[in-house]
Amino acid sequence: MIDLRSDTVTKPTEEMRKAMYEAEVGDDVYREDPTVRQLEELAAEKLGKEAALFVTSGTQGNQVAVLTHGKAGDEIILEADSHIFYYEGGAAAALAGVQTRIIPGIKGQMPIDKIREAIRDDRDIHLPHTAMIGLENTHNRAGGVILPPQYMKEVYQVAQEKGVAVHLDGARLFNAAVALEVDVKEFTQYVDTVQVCFSKGLSAPVGSVLAGPKDFIEVARKWRKRLGGGMRQAGIMAAPGIVALTQMVDRLAEDHRRAKELAVALQEIKGIQIELESVQTNIVLIDVKDTGMTAHQFLEELKNCQILGSAFGEYLIRLTTHRHITDQDISDTIDAFYQISKKRSQA
Amino acid sequence: MIDLRSDTVTKPTEEMRKAMYEAEVGDDVYREDPTVRQLEELAAEKLGKEAALFVTSGTQGNQVAVLTHGKAGDEIILEADSHIFYYEGGAAAALAGVQTRIIPGIKGQMPIDKIREAIRDDRDIHLPHTAMIGLENTHNRAGGVILPPQYMKEVYQVAQEKGVAVHLDGARLFNAAVALEVDVKEFTQYVDTVQVCFSKGLSAPVGSVLAGPKDFIEVARKWRKRLGGGMRQAGIMAAPGIVALTQMVDRLAEDHRRAKELAVALQEIKGIQIELESVQTNIVLIDVKDTGMTAHQFLEELKNCQILGSAFGEYLIRLTTHRHITDQDISDTIDAFYQISKKRSQA
Amino acid sequence: MIDLRSDTVTKPTEEMRKAMYEAEVGDDVYREDPTVRQLEELAAEKLGKEAALFVTSGTQGNQVAVLTHGKAGDEIILEADSHIFYYEGGAAAALAGVQTRIIPGIKGQMPIDKIREAIRDDRDIHLPHTAMIGLENTHNRAGGVILPPQYMKEVYQVAQEKGVAVHLDGARLFNAAVALEVDVKEFTQYVDTVQVCFSKGLSAPVGSVLAGPKDFIEVARKWRKRLGGGMRQAGIMAAPGIVALTQMVDRLAEDHRRAKELAVALQEIKGIQIELESVQTNIVLIDVKDTGMTAHQFLEELKNCQILGSAFGEYLIRLTTHRHITDQDISDTIDAFYQISKKRSQA
Amino acid sequence: MIDLRSDTVTKPTEEMRKAMYEAEVGDDVYREDPTVRQLEELAAEKLGKEAALFVTSGTQGNQVAVLTHGKAGDEIILEADSHIFYYEGGAAAALAGVQTRIIPGIKGQMPIDKIREAIRDDRDIHLPHTAMIGLENTHNRAGGVILPPQYMKEVYQVAQEKGVAVHLDGARLFNAAVALEVDVKEFTQYVDTVQVCFSKGLSAPVGSVLAGPKDFIEVARKWRKRLGGGMRQAGIMAAPGIVALTQMVDRLAEDHRRAKELAVALQEIKGIQIELESVQTNIVLIDVKDTGMTAHQFLEELKNCQILGSAFGEYLIRLTTHRHITDQDISDTIDAFYQISKKRSQA
Repeated sequence: MIDLRSDTVTKPTEEMRKAMYEAEVGDDVYREDPTVRQLEELAAEKLGKEAALFVTSGTQGNQVAVLTHGKAGDEIILEADSHIFYYEGGAAAALAGVQTRIIPGIKGQMPIDKIREAIRDDRDIHLPHTAMIGLENTHNRAGGVILPPQYMKEVYQVAQEKGVAVHLDGARLFNAAVALEVDVKEFTQYVDTVQVCFSKGLSAPVGSVLAGPKDFIEVARKWRKRLGGGMRQAGIMAAPGIVALTQMVDRLAEDHRRAKELAVALQEIKGIQIELESVQTNIVLIDVKDTGMTAHQFLEELKNCQILGSAFGEYLIRLTTHRHITDQDISDTIDAFYQISKKRSQA
Repeated sequence: MIDLRSDTVTKPTEEMRKAMYEAEVGDDVYREDPTVRQLEELAAEKLGKEAALFVTSGTQGNQVAVLTHGKAGDEIILEADSHIFYYEGGAAAALAGVQTRIIPGIKGQMPIDKIREAIRDDRDIHLPHTAMIGLENTHNRAGGVILPPQYMKEVYQVAQEKGVAVHLDGARLFNAAVALEVDVKEFTQYVDTVQVCFSKGLSAPVGSVLAGPKDFIEVARKWRKRLGGGMRQAGIMAAPGIVALTQMVDRLAEDHRRAKELAVALQEIKGIQIELESVQTNIVLIDVKDTGMTAHQFLEELKNCQILGSAFGEYLIRLTTHRHITDQDISDTIDAFYQISKKRSQA
Repeated sequence: MIDLRSDTVTKPTEEMRKAMYEAEVGDDVYREDPTVRQLEELAAEKLGKEAALFVTSGTQGNQVAVLTHGKAGDEIILEADSHIFYYEGGAAAALAGVQTRIIPGIKGQMPIDKIREAIRDDRDIHLPHTAMIGLENTHNRAGGVILPPQYMKEVYQVAQEKGVAVHLDGARLFNAAVALEVDVKEFTQYVDTVQVCFSKGLSAPVGSVLAGPKDFIEVARKWRKRLGGGMRQAGIMAAPGIVALTQMVDRLAEDHRRAKELAVALQEIKGIQIELESVQTNIVLIDVKDTGMTAHQFLEELKNCQILGSAFGEYLIRLTTHRHITDQDISDTIDAFYQISKKRSQA
Repeated sequence: MIDLRSDTVTKPTEEMRKAMYEAEVGDDVYREDPTVRQLEELAAEKLGKEAALFVTSGTQGNQVAVLTHGKAGDEIILEADSHIFYYEGGAAAALAGVQTRIIPGIKGQMPIDKIREAIRDDRDIHLPHTAMIGLENTHNRAGGVILPPQYMKEVYQVAQEKGVAVHLDGARLFNAAVALEVDVKEFTQYVDTVQVCFSKGLSAPVGSVLAGPKDFIEVARKWRKRLGGGMRQAGIMAAPGIVALTQMVDRLAEDHRRAKELAVALQEIKGIQIELESVQTNIVLIDVKDTGMTAHQFLEELKNCQILGSAFGEYLIRLTTHRHITDQDISDTIDAFYQISKKRSQA
């Protein structure tokens, strides 16, 4: 099977397995796991923040951020297709009691003036307090597009002027940094807190990190405990995270190259629509409407060719490249699309 | 002062005061207040629902509806400028833990296809369950526009097909019915539950009612108690509600006529923009941007002329007609606008 | 019917009805209702607090206090039979997300050392922050007993030492003050916030007030709005509250006298157990176990004699005196108990 | 250091490290991690339940259980010193909005009649619905005591009669089973759901499992996702769990033997109080009050002797035996206690 469903399917590298095997561990609830501490310090440094907290998933990192930035009766501003709003089971409201105010973005970017308008004047008794603005970079549902540092700077300026915190869901932030060939700090300097995942393109089996000011992370640590994310010998999970951060970042460029090659080839096919300028990292969104098939039907055909992808809407398919996808896989996938398309047009 | 800020400023009529004075009361927590029961039965009948519950405000009616339709981890679909989302302090998330999914409407109407798309498939582990669609009629922030029964029918059909409840914030539903010269049941037949206010154009001092299926109202009654809305000799508050429902509905037509006259006259003034076709009931939205003044500055000028209105955005003013606004008031308001405008253009 | 179920059944006095009829009103959401303002100022002064907020019920006053003192992840300490814990539908957790830590009291008094032990050290990552201690005076389920000022002082000292707020559910605080012949401030000086009801012995149809520091009340006002307790011409409800506060307090002594007479007489009856020293105000708790009847069975017999009471446990009955209960009613009630008892022992 | 603070400090065995190293993994959010599936099936079978869910910690297992059994406005019954109430940061209220009704237990056992009385009649509008009874076995704060199957049966009978679910916090359930030399199913047959930890005496680095009916586990899976407990190649964490379940259970008997030996020896020391009959598993509670030292002071002295323990109250110390504690450690600990005691009595 050529599994293009997600970069989350990546399996740990041999080096990661070794790191787990050999990891020095302690009881992290007592803050005595040296491997966890090492990862947290390393992540804080790389992300340019005072402190960091190891969490079991991107969702946990995001939700702990929401719980720490906001409280019941507050409002948070999110892009309408952001992961926090779209894919986390309504947890922001369910757990933190914060109201989600969503703004549709253009390539993942909420218009600055819309953000400004959406921040509430909480002196009015009818209005909630705006506690947080959430950004996502790269933006998954927008097709892995990058929010440029300049855009993030503008959001941050509005936020600071109004006294609102900015949180970055940077599940795939290293993809953005690699694609633009800049340090991740170019992005993170414009946010108060950031979450990054080790278990996507970076290939670690599990785990993410939430970074921010020291005081914030202390409060976040308690929220993580309430969610059940406080663990004992967590070093075994942190060890592959260290490998991910130190050795797996640069290779993301390969995933990007392959995604671009895939996109360029596929968009030549009749009935297939791809916004090439949005293929900036390892994600390719493919509109199959003009083939006369729905996303689900098309994915069924792909599956018959031993290829897996994800439905992202009625006629939209997402393909994601990652460490296990080879040049041959890309070539085979292109062939499969031609076959399916051809069969369809003959039908 | 000519108070055009809101129809909520209306004071009880002499008849309402008499009704309070004479109201037969009992302990409504024991369901022994005959006046409350009478109002609830009357409201249920008028709204075409099995049962009704007296609540202290529109916000309470709406929030009890949200709490009863949904639970933590669910999502509700609301128009982006709806009262439940915009003006209730984030209570839907704070109290019920439900995530608000907002869709921008056109004249208060969320596009049917957008509603359909927004309903989630909760078999996916990432996605919340969609528990409720909220409508608002007339729609306040859209300028008191009416959602036609045909539109509500279409929403209801999508909702029923998908198994989602529809709640109507009918704070000013009687304005819609009077304006279209139809029975309120023309609207309420297309919703599961509805909240209507007695304290706006209908002039009662306080109170609203939430109507719906009998089982629903039983659960709602407990949520009302948790919010502190269970009261003892509540008949004194229900009594003016009965007057409101039985004697104050038809006169809303007068408010509508005056709002229209005001709008028609004002839009002739240079620098004043009004969408005349949106002036359907007792609300007039006025864009003063071209006068070079902000809404707050313009309202300051109006205040100097003994006229009060509300800011509805940076350059938007809302004027609302009601029982205390006379033809003379309308005429004086028009004069004031001319004066302010003239002064400004001379400046 | 002689209705001894609760003092909540008291109907408004003629003076209250007149006050409603004549009340000067305005829009209280805009803070323009002069009668509400008058009541809030009067209540603040009488309770010795900076500010006060009119609410629709004791439950609303208590829950707004909990929401304002605490936030999700906090803990509050309550007596195990207190109204906030026992009778408010689990609202403290449902609305505010605070964990209730209950301590069984002796005559409504939680032992001071148990309170001290129960306050958490929130530096430990496993432990919630203790945000509030709740007291209830008079204590309903303990039989209307009074928490003496000295006890409240001791609680307050522990609370202040630990930085924890104290809230008083003073639904029947005026009963305590009248019974001890002291000013209510003797009690309220030892709490941060206090809620008192107008709709119980004081006979107003509805309404309570929450009093405390000015800043606290500002935040509380927003929580009241979220619960739907923000009302328009609320002066009609506040007017009888003013009568209650200014004219109805002293007469509570009569209710106390009658309760005592009732208790003294009843405890002579075979099979009836009453703790006479707990009959301190207008409540009489009666253990009927030795009559061989359950509370429900006994209440059924009383009902046949045109007398109503409340079940307070499997074998416990609560009788409450109030403005509508006359000396004749007391005498008739005693007779009925004798009859029921006699019939029973003959059976 | 002789670390007797907790059995959570146990490090993974060589076999566990190998299991991690070699674990076959997949994406568990897609339910494709074979090792996680194997662990869940194994755990379900061993616990006698239809299905099981791998979670990152005991707290997560318990909180997911609370979220799935209850909803905002419900009440749950917990022993006053239970982990869910005492040590989970108030999460039951913070996340699920359920009110905690605590009952003090005797050796961890809430009296059956108190449980029965505490279950609410939710037809009364004032009262919450009782959604869950929580038990803890072995009971940590009661000193690792065992709740006998017979007691659990009685609780379950009351619960079933009243239609209330029973959840077992079985963080150390295998200790109970080993101590009584019975199958864990002897306990789990009397509960609806159960959580057991792999990371305590069983020595796995992280992880627990929640088991129960299939439908329940499906809903629980979504709550786990909201808490951020849905992970990708989670098999690396599940692999040591399989080792824990299959190979580490029997050896708990050793920990119990050593705890007993420690307790028997220590209680001979002047000033040291131990309830020997409560030393049933691997926990020893030691009252040091009569030594004239607080728990913290005594622990300081122990630390100087290279021994670590936990404070469990002002004068109470908990020592916990586990895989890393040898007979020599026990002997050294006893010596240290004698030394400290002697030094003290000479002072």
